[in-house]
Amino acid sequence: MTENGNVDLVEAMSTQRAIRRLRPDPVDDEVILKLLRLAVKAPTGSNQQNWEFIVVRDPKVKAGLGKQNRRVALPYLKAGKIVKRRDEKSLRLIKAVEWQLEHWDEIPVIIVPCLRGISWPLPWIYKSSRYGSIYPAIQNLLLAARAEGLGAALTTFPLWNRVAARRILHLPLHVEPIACIPMGWPVGKYGPTTRTPVEELTHLDHYGNRAYKT
Amino acid sequence: MTENGNVDLVEAMSTQRAIRRLRPDPVDDEVILKLLRLAVKAPTGSNQQNWEFIVVRDPKVKAGLGKQNRRVALPYLKAGKIVKRRDEKSLRLIKAVEWQLEHWDEIPVIIVPCLRGISWPLPWIYKSSRYGSIYPAIQNLLLAARAEGLGAALTTFPLWNRVAARRILHLPLHVEPIACIPMGWPVGKYGPTTRTPVEELTHLDHYGNRAYKT
Repeated sequence: MTENGNVDLVEAMSTQRAIRRLRPDPVDDEVILKLLRLAVKAPTGSNQQNWEFIVVRDPKVKAGLGKQNRRVALPYLKAGKIVKRRDEKSLRLIKAVEWQLEHWDEIPVIIVPCLRGISWPLPWIYKSSRYGSIYPAIQNLLLAARAEGLGAALTTFPLWNRVAARRILHLPLHVEPIACIPMGWPVGKYGPTTRTPVEELTHLDHYGNRAYKT
Repeated sequence: MTENGNVDLVEAMSTQRAIRRLRPDPVDDEVILKLLRLAVKAPTGSNQQNWEFIVVRDPKVKAGLGKQNRRVALPYLKAGKIVKRRDEKSLRLIKAVEWQLEHWDEIPVIIVPCLRGISWPLPWIYKSSRYGSIYPAIQNLLLAARAEGLGAALTTFPLWNRVAARRILHLPLHVEPIACIPMGWPVGKYGPTTRTPVEELTHLDHYGNRAYKT
Protein backbone atom coordinates (compact mmCIF):
# COMPACT_ATOMS: atom_id res chain seq x y z
CA MET A 1 0.00 0.00 0.00
CA THR A 2 1.38 3.41 -0.92
CA GLU A 3 1.06 6.69 1.02
CA ASN A 4 -1.87 7.96 -1.03
CA GLY A 5 -3.78 4.76 -0.40
CA ASN A 6 -3.00 3.23 -3.77
CA VAL A 7 -1.87 -0.35 -4.07
CA ASP A 8 1.43 -0.88 -5.83
CA LEU A 9 1.54 -2.66 -9.16
CA VAL A 10 3.57 -5.68 -8.08
CA GLU A 11 1.35 -6.20 -5.04
CA ALA A 12 -1.86 -5.93 -7.09
CA MET A 13 -0.64 -8.39 -9.73
CA SER A 14 0.78 -10.82 -7.17
CA THR A 15 -2.46 -11.00 -5.19
CA GLN A 16 -4.95 -10.92 -8.06
CA ARG A 17 -7.27 -13.90 -8.08
CA ALA A 18 -10.80 -14.76 -9.16
CA ILE A 19 -13.16 -13.98 -6.26
CA ARG A 20 -16.63 -15.46 -6.68
CA ARG A 21 -18.05 -15.26 -3.16
CA LEU A 22 -19.38 -11.69 -3.04
CA ARG A 23 -21.36 -9.76 -0.43
CA PRO A 24 -24.67 -8.20 -1.56
CA ASP A 25 -23.58 -4.74 -0.29
CA PRO A 26 -23.85 -2.02 -2.94
CA VAL A 27 -20.90 -0.84 -5.03
CA ASP A 28 -21.17 2.87 -5.87
CA ASP A 29 -21.22 4.16 -9.44
CA GLU A 30 -18.22 6.35 -8.62
CA VAL A 31 -16.14 3.24 -7.88
CA ILE A 32 -17.28 1.54 -11.09
CA LEU A 33 -16.46 4.62 -13.18
CA LYS A 34 -13.04 4.85 -11.52
CA LEU A 35 -12.33 1.24 -12.57
CA LEU A 36 -13.58 1.89 -16.11
CA ARG A 37 -11.40 5.00 -16.41
CA LEU A 38 -8.38 2.81 -15.74
CA ALA A 39 -9.67 0.04 -18.02
CA VAL A 40 -9.72 2.34 -21.06
CA LYS A 41 -6.08 3.30 -20.46
CA ALA A 42 -5.16 -0.09 -21.91
CA PRO A 43 -3.88 -0.38 -25.49
CA THR A 44 -6.14 -1.20 -28.47
CA GLY A 45 -5.15 -2.19 -32.00
CA SER A 46 -4.48 0.94 -34.11
CA ASN A 47 -5.73 2.94 -31.10
CA GLN A 48 -9.34 2.21 -32.12
CA GLN A 49 -10.74 2.31 -28.56
CA ASN A 50 -13.71 0.37 -29.93
CA TRP A 51 -15.01 -0.72 -26.55
CA GLU A 52 -18.37 -0.27 -24.80
CA PHE A 53 -19.24 -1.31 -21.24
CA ILE A 54 -22.62 -2.43 -19.92
CA VAL A 55 -22.98 -1.99 -16.15
CA VAL A 56 -25.75 -4.35 -15.02
CA ARG A 57 -27.63 -3.55 -11.79
CA ASP A 58 -31.29 -4.24 -12.76
CA PRO A 59 -32.43 -7.52 -11.08
CA LYS A 60 -34.27 -8.59 -14.27
CA VAL A 61 -31.21 -8.17 -16.48
CA LYS A 62 -29.07 -9.91 -13.86
CA ALA A 63 -31.56 -12.79 -13.70
CA GLY A 64 -31.47 -13.10 -17.51
CA LEU A 65 -27.68 -13.42 -17.48
CA GLY A 66 -27.92 -15.80 -14.49
CA LYS A 67 -30.24 -18.14 -16.39
CA GLN A 68 -27.83 -18.25 -19.33
CA ASN A 69 -24.94 -18.81 -16.95
CA ARG A 70 -26.63 -21.80 -15.27
CA ARG A 71 -27.42 -23.41 -18.63
CA VAL A 72 -23.74 -23.63 -19.49
CA ALA A 73 -22.24 -23.86 -16.00
CA LEU A 74 -24.36 -26.70 -14.54
CA PRO A 75 -23.41 -29.41 -17.06
CA TYR A 76 -19.83 -28.08 -17.09
CA LEU A 77 -19.59 -28.35 -13.29
CA LYS A 78 -21.19 -31.80 -13.29
CA ALA A 79 -18.59 -33.06 -15.76
CA GLY A 80 -15.82 -31.21 -13.91
CA LYS A 81 -16.66 -32.91 -10.61
CA ILE A 82 -16.18 -36.32 -12.21
CA VAL A 83 -13.09 -35.55 -14.31
CA LYS A 84 -11.33 -33.56 -11.56
CA ARG A 85 -12.52 -35.69 -8.61
CA ARG A 86 -8.94 -36.20 -7.36
CA ASP A 87 -7.82 -32.61 -7.98
CA GLU A 88 -8.34 -30.57 -4.78
CA LYS A 89 -7.60 -27.23 -6.47
CA SER A 90 -10.12 -27.77 -9.27
CA LEU A 91 -12.73 -28.94 -6.77
CA ARG A 92 -12.25 -25.71 -4.78
CA LEU A 93 -12.77 -23.72 -7.98
CA ILE A 94 -15.92 -25.73 -8.78
CA LYS A 95 -17.27 -25.05 -5.28
CA ALA A 96 -16.72 -21.30 -5.72
CA VAL A 97 -18.49 -21.32 -9.10
CA GLU A 98 -21.40 -23.22 -7.50
CA TRP A 99 -21.57 -20.66 -4.69
CA GLN A 100 -21.78 -17.87 -7.24
CA LEU A 101 -24.55 -19.64 -9.18
CA GLU A 102 -26.59 -19.96 -5.98
CA HIS A 103 -26.03 -16.32 -5.00
CA TRP A 104 -26.18 -14.86 -8.52
CA ASP A 105 -29.15 -12.57 -7.86
CA GLU A 106 -27.36 -10.94 -4.91
CA ILE A 107 -24.32 -9.88 -6.95
CA PRO A 108 -24.39 -6.07 -6.74
CA VAL A 109 -22.99 -5.34 -10.20
CA ILE A 110 -22.03 -7.21 -13.36
CA ILE A 111 -19.88 -5.55 -16.01
CA VAL A 112 -20.09 -6.73 -19.63
CA PRO A 113 -17.26 -5.34 -21.79
CA CYS A 114 -18.19 -5.26 -25.50
CA LEU A 115 -16.45 -4.52 -28.79
CA ARG A 116 -17.88 -2.46 -31.61
CA GLY A 117 -17.49 -3.96 -35.07
CA ILE A 118 -18.54 -7.39 -36.19
CA SER A 119 -16.49 -10.50 -35.46
CA TRP A 120 -16.00 -11.64 -39.06
CA PRO A 121 -14.93 -15.20 -39.77
CA LEU A 122 -11.52 -13.84 -40.73
CA PRO A 123 -8.01 -15.27 -40.32
CA TRP A 124 -6.60 -16.10 -36.90
CA ILE A 125 -4.43 -12.98 -36.68
CA TYR A 126 -7.46 -10.75 -37.01
CA LYS A 127 -9.01 -12.56 -34.04
CA SER A 128 -5.82 -12.06 -32.03
CA SER A 129 -5.85 -8.31 -32.77
CA ARG A 130 -9.58 -8.04 -32.07
CA TYR A 131 -9.63 -9.79 -28.69
CA GLY A 132 -6.26 -8.19 -27.99
CA SER A 133 -8.11 -4.87 -28.15
CA ILE A 134 -10.38 -5.68 -25.20
CA TYR A 135 -8.68 -8.16 -22.85
CA PRO A 136 -5.92 -5.71 -21.84
CA ALA A 137 -8.72 -3.32 -20.75
CA ILE A 138 -10.45 -6.19 -18.92
CA GLN A 139 -7.20 -7.00 -17.12
CA ASN A 140 -6.83 -3.33 -16.11
CA LEU A 141 -10.40 -3.48 -14.78
CA LEU A 142 -9.66 -6.62 -12.75
CA LEU A 143 -6.40 -5.21 -11.37
CA ALA A 144 -8.09 -1.92 -10.50
CA ALA A 145 -10.87 -3.88 -8.74
CA ARG A 146 -8.17 -5.72 -6.78
CA ALA A 147 -6.63 -2.38 -5.78
CA GLU A 148 -10.04 -1.17 -4.54
CA GLY A 149 -10.50 -4.37 -2.52
CA LEU A 150 -13.38 -5.46 -4.77
CA GLY A 151 -13.85 -9.12 -5.65
CA ALA A 152 -14.26 -10.01 -9.33
CA ALA A 153 -13.97 -12.92 -11.73
CA LEU A 154 -13.95 -13.37 -15.47
CA THR A 155 -16.43 -15.67 -17.20
CA THR A 156 -17.90 -16.15 -20.67
CA PHE A 157 -20.61 -18.68 -19.65
CA PRO A 158 -23.53 -16.16 -19.60
CA LEU A 159 -22.68 -15.18 -23.19
CA TRP A 160 -22.36 -18.60 -24.87
CA ASN A 161 -25.80 -18.13 -26.34
CA ARG A 162 -25.03 -14.93 -28.16
CA VAL A 163 -28.58 -14.41 -29.41
CA ALA A 164 -29.93 -14.56 -25.85
CA ALA A 165 -27.16 -12.31 -24.51
CA ARG A 166 -27.89 -9.71 -27.20
CA ARG A 167 -31.59 -9.81 -26.37
CA ILE A 168 -31.01 -9.46 -22.60
CA LEU A 169 -28.60 -6.54 -23.01
CA HIS A 170 -30.40 -4.92 -26.01
CA LEU A 171 -27.16 -5.06 -28.00
CA PRO A 172 -27.27 -3.94 -31.62
CA LEU A 173 -25.65 -6.27 -34.17
CA HIS A 174 -22.48 -4.21 -34.43
CA VAL A 175 -21.73 -4.57 -30.69
CA GLU A 176 -20.31 -7.91 -29.54
CA PRO A 177 -20.37 -8.95 -25.86
CA ILE A 178 -16.95 -10.33 -24.89
CA ALA A 179 -17.02 -11.38 -21.24
CA CYS A 180 -18.95 -11.09 -17.97
CA ILE A 181 -17.41 -9.75 -14.75
CA PRO A 182 -19.53 -10.22 -11.59
CA MET A 183 -18.21 -7.76 -9.04
CA GLY A 184 -18.74 -6.94 -5.36
CA TRP A 185 -17.11 -6.70 -1.96
CA PRO A 186 -15.56 -10.08 -1.21
CA VAL A 187 -16.69 -12.52 1.47
CA GLY A 188 -13.18 -13.97 1.63
CA LYS A 189 -9.74 -12.44 1.20
CA TYR A 190 -7.36 -11.93 -1.68
CA GLY A 191 -4.17 -13.92 -1.36
CA PRO A 192 -1.16 -15.01 -3.40
CA THR A 193 -1.67 -17.46 -6.27
CA THR A 194 0.57 -20.34 -7.27
CA ARG A 195 1.94 -20.57 -10.80
CA THR A 196 4.26 -22.79 -12.79
CA PRO A 197 7.72 -21.11 -12.61
CA VAL A 198 8.30 -18.98 -15.73
CA GLU A 199 11.71 -20.61 -16.24
CA GLU A 200 9.82 -23.74 -17.33
CA LEU A 201 7.74 -21.79 -19.86
CA THR A 202 10.40 -19.50 -21.32
CA HIS A 203 12.52 -20.29 -24.37
CA LEU A 204 15.50 -18.34 -25.74
CA ASP A 205 15.34 -17.46 -29.46
CA HIS A 206 13.67 -20.74 -30.46
CA TYR A 207 10.99 -22.91 -28.96
CA GLY A 208 12.67 -25.73 -27.05
CA ASN A 209 15.81 -23.78 -26.11
CA ARG A 210 15.17 -23.73 -22.37
CA ALA A 211 18.05 -21.45 -21.48
CA TYR A 212 16.44 -20.22 -18.26
CA LYS A 213 15.59 -23.59 -16.79
CA THR A 214 17.72 -24.33 -13.73
CA MET B 1 6.62 5.88 -7.06
CA THR B 2 6.39 3.97 -3.77
CA GLU B 3 9.05 3.73 -1.04
CA ASN B 4 10.39 0.37 -2.18
CA GLY B 5 10.90 1.75 -5.68
CA ASN B 6 7.76 0.20 -7.11
CA VAL B 7 5.37 2.20 -9.27
CA ASP B 8 1.80 2.34 -8.08
CA LEU B 9 -0.90 0.68 -10.11
CA VAL B 10 -2.89 3.80 -11.00
CA GLU B 11 0.28 5.60 -12.07
CA ALA B 12 1.45 2.67 -14.22
CA MET B 13 -1.92 2.33 -15.96
CA SER B 14 -2.33 6.07 -16.44
CA THR B 15 1.06 6.48 -18.09
CA GLN B 16 1.16 3.27 -20.12
CA ARG B 17 1.66 3.87 -23.81
CA ALA B 18 3.20 2.14 -26.81
CA ILE B 19 6.88 3.10 -27.00
CA ARG B 20 8.53 2.19 -30.31
CA ARG B 21 11.72 4.29 -30.25
CA LEU B 22 14.08 2.08 -28.24
CA ARG B 23 17.76 2.36 -27.38
CA PRO B 24 20.02 -0.56 -28.37
CA ASP B 25 21.34 -0.89 -24.76
CA PRO B 26 20.98 -4.43 -23.39
CA VAL B 27 18.09 -5.52 -21.16
CA ASP B 28 19.19 -8.15 -18.63
CA ASP B 29 17.60 -11.59 -18.42
CA GLU B 30 16.81 -10.91 -14.76
CA VAL B 31 14.58 -7.97 -15.76
CA ILE B 32 12.82 -10.04 -18.45
CA LEU B 33 12.18 -12.90 -16.01
CA LYS B 34 10.82 -10.43 -13.45
CA LEU B 35 8.31 -9.16 -16.03
CA LEU B 36 7.34 -12.70 -17.03
CA ARG B 37 6.83 -13.69 -13.38
CA LEU B 38 4.23 -10.90 -13.14
CA ALA B 39 2.75 -11.77 -16.55
CA VAL B 40 1.84 -15.30 -15.44
CA LYS B 41 0.00 -13.95 -12.38
CA ALA B 42 -2.82 -13.01 -14.79
CA PRO B 43 -5.96 -15.16 -15.03
CA THR B 44 -6.41 -17.91 -17.64
CA GLY B 45 -9.59 -19.78 -18.59
CA SER B 46 -10.14 -22.73 -16.20
CA ASN B 47 -6.70 -21.89 -14.74
CA GLN B 48 -5.03 -23.68 -17.68
CA GLN B 49 -1.89 -21.52 -17.68
CA ASN B 50 -1.33 -22.72 -21.24
CA TRP B 51 1.19 -20.03 -22.14
CA GLU B 52 4.78 -20.17 -23.41
CA PHE B 53 7.11 -17.22 -23.97
CA ILE B 54 9.86 -16.91 -26.57
CA VAL B 55 12.52 -14.35 -25.65
CA VAL B 56 14.27 -13.34 -28.88
CA ARG B 57 17.82 -11.93 -28.69
CA ASP B 58 19.58 -13.74 -31.59
CA PRO B 59 20.14 -11.21 -34.46
CA LYS B 60 19.16 -13.84 -37.06
CA VAL B 61 15.83 -14.61 -35.39
CA LYS B 62 15.20 -10.89 -34.91
CA ALA B 63 15.97 -10.26 -38.60
CA GLY B 64 13.53 -13.01 -39.59
CA LEU B 65 10.73 -11.38 -37.59
CA GLY B 66 11.76 -7.97 -38.94
CA LYS B 67 11.42 -9.16 -42.54
CA GLN B 68 7.90 -10.46 -41.82
CA ASN B 69 7.05 -7.23 -40.02
CA ARG B 70 8.13 -5.06 -42.99
CA ARG B 71 6.09 -7.17 -45.43
CA VAL B 72 2.88 -6.31 -43.59
CA ALA B 73 3.79 -2.92 -42.15
CA LEU B 74 5.07 -1.17 -45.29
CA PRO B 75 1.87 -1.40 -47.38
CA TYR B 76 -0.17 -0.73 -44.23
CA LEU B 77 1.81 2.45 -43.48
CA LYS B 78 1.65 3.56 -47.10
CA ALA B 79 -2.15 3.30 -47.09
CA GLY B 80 -2.33 4.86 -43.61
CA LYS B 81 -0.39 7.95 -44.71
CA ILE B 82 -2.98 8.60 -47.43
CA VAL B 83 -6.14 7.77 -45.46
CA LYS B 84 -4.98 9.57 -42.28
CA ARG B 85 -3.21 12.49 -43.99
CA ARG B 86 -5.20 15.07 -42.00
CA ASP B 87 -5.01 13.20 -38.67
CA GLU B 88 -1.96 14.47 -36.72
CA LYS B 89 -2.22 11.76 -34.05
CA SER B 90 -2.31 8.89 -36.56
CA LEU B 91 0.59 10.42 -38.49
CA ARG B 92 2.66 10.53 -35.27
CA LEU B 93 1.88 6.84 -34.70
CA ILE B 94 2.88 6.03 -38.30
CA LYS B 95 6.18 7.89 -37.83
CA ALA B 96 6.94 5.87 -34.68
CA VAL B 97 6.19 2.58 -36.47
CA GLU B 98 8.48 3.65 -39.33
CA TRP B 99 11.23 4.51 -36.85
CA GLN B 100 10.95 1.04 -35.34
CA LEU B 101 11.08 -0.63 -38.77
CA GLU B 102 14.31 1.24 -39.56
CA HIS B 103 15.87 0.37 -36.20
CA TRP B 104 14.45 -3.16 -35.90
CA ASP B 105 17.82 -4.95 -35.77
CA GLU B 106 18.93 -2.79 -32.82
CA ILE B 107 15.95 -3.75 -30.61
CA PRO B 108 17.58 -5.54 -27.64
CA VAL B 109 14.81 -8.05 -26.99
CA ILE B 110 11.53 -9.19 -28.54
CA ILE B 111 9.06 -11.28 -26.53
CA VAL B 112 6.62 -13.56 -28.34
CA PRO B 113 3.85 -14.85 -26.03
CA CYS B 114 2.34 -18.12 -27.31
CA LEU B 115 -0.57 -20.39 -26.40
CA ARG B 116 -0.44 -24.17 -26.27
CA GLY B 117 -3.33 -25.94 -27.94
CA ILE B 118 -4.55 -25.52 -31.48
CA SER B 119 -6.73 -22.57 -32.50
CA TRP B 120 -9.65 -24.58 -33.90
CA PRO B 121 -12.19 -22.91 -36.18
CA LEU B 122 -14.65 -23.06 -33.29
CA PRO B 123 -17.45 -20.71 -32.21
CA TRP B 124 -16.74 -17.12 -31.28
CA ILE B 125 -16.97 -17.69 -27.52
CA TYR B 126 -14.18 -20.25 -27.67
CA LYS B 127 -12.02 -17.60 -29.34
CA SER B 128 -12.88 -15.08 -26.64
CA SER B 129 -11.88 -17.56 -23.90
CA ARG B 130 -8.73 -18.56 -25.77
CA TYR B 131 -7.35 -15.08 -26.43
CA GLY B 132 -8.72 -14.06 -23.02
CA SER B 133 -6.23 -16.56 -21.59
CA ILE B 134 -3.18 -14.72 -22.94
CA TYR B 135 -3.95 -11.01 -23.35
CA PRO B 136 -4.37 -10.41 -19.59
CA ALA B 137 -0.83 -11.83 -19.17
CA ILE B 138 0.38 -9.63 -22.04
CA GLN B 139 -1.15 -6.58 -20.35
CA ASN B 140 0.59 -7.52 -17.07
CA LEU B 141 3.85 -7.77 -19.03
CA LEU B 142 3.34 -4.32 -20.59
CA LEU B 143 2.38 -2.71 -17.27
CA ALA B 144 5.34 -4.35 -15.53
CA ALA B 145 7.61 -3.06 -18.33
CA ARG B 146 6.18 0.40 -17.73
CA ALA B 147 6.94 0.09 -14.01
CA GLU B 148 10.56 -0.84 -14.83
CA GLY B 149 10.86 2.15 -17.16
CA LEU B 150 11.16 -0.13 -20.20
CA GLY B 151 9.59 0.85 -23.50
CA ALA B 152 7.34 -1.70 -25.22
CA ALA B 153 4.61 -1.98 -27.82
CA LEU B 154 2.21 -4.66 -28.97
CA THR B 155 2.06 -5.79 -32.59
CA THR B 156 0.88 -8.81 -34.58
CA PHE B 157 2.44 -7.76 -37.93
CA PRO B 158 5.49 -10.08 -37.69
CA LEU B 159 3.13 -13.06 -37.20
CA TRP B 160 0.62 -12.54 -40.01
CA ASN B 161 2.37 -15.21 -42.02
CA ARG B 162 1.95 -17.95 -39.46
CA VAL B 163 3.93 -20.52 -41.43
CA ALA B 164 6.93 -18.18 -41.59
CA ALA B 165 6.62 -17.22 -37.90
CA ARG B 166 6.53 -20.91 -36.91
CA ARG B 167 9.63 -21.61 -39.01
CA ILE B 168 11.57 -18.64 -37.58
CA LEU B 169 10.73 -19.52 -33.96
CA HIS B 170 10.83 -23.34 -34.42
CA LEU B 171 7.31 -23.58 -33.01
CA PRO B 172 5.65 -27.00 -32.97
CA LEU B 173 2.11 -27.20 -34.39
CA HIS B 174 0.48 -27.21 -30.95
CA VAL B 175 2.03 -23.85 -29.99
CA GLU B 176 0.44 -20.73 -31.49
CA PRO B 177 2.28 -17.39 -31.54
CA ILE B 178 -0.10 -14.62 -30.38
CA ALA B 179 1.72 -11.30 -30.47
CA CYS B 180 5.12 -9.65 -30.69
CA ILE B 181 6.46 -7.25 -28.06
CA PRO B 182 9.67 -5.37 -29.01
CA MET B 183 11.19 -4.11 -25.77
CA GLY B 184 14.05 -1.89 -24.68
CA TRP B 185 15.02 1.26 -22.79
CA PRO B 186 13.07 4.15 -24.33
CA VAL B 187 14.53 7.02 -26.32
CA GLY B 188 11.57 9.21 -25.33
CA LYS B 189 9.48 9.41 -22.20
CA TYR B 190 6.29 7.79 -20.97
CA GLY B 191 3.44 10.24 -20.56
CA PRO B 192 -0.31 10.37 -20.05
CA THR B 193 -2.57 9.18 -22.87
CA THR B 194 -5.86 10.71 -23.98
CA ARG B 195 -9.01 8.63 -24.10
CA THR B 196 -12.68 9.08 -24.88
CA PRO B 197 -14.40 9.69 -21.48
CA VAL B 198 -15.88 6.43 -20.14
CA GLU B 199 -19.20 8.15 -19.50
CA GLU B 200 -19.68 8.16 -23.28
CA LEU B 201 -18.98 4.44 -23.54
CA THR B 202 -20.87 3.14 -20.51
CA HIS B 203 -24.47 1.98 -20.50
CA LEU B 204 -26.65 1.06 -17.50
CA ASP B 205 -28.41 -2.33 -17.71
CA HIS B 206 -29.08 -2.09 -21.45
CA TYR B 207 -27.12 -0.85 -24.42
CA GLY B 208 -28.24 2.69 -25.21
CA ASN B 209 -29.16 3.63 -21.63
CA ARG B 210 -26.47 6.27 -21.16
CA ALA B 211 -27.11 6.92 -17.50
CA TYR B 212 -23.59 8.15 -16.82
CA LYS B 213 -23.40 10.68 -19.63
CA THR B 214 -23.32 14.23 -18.31
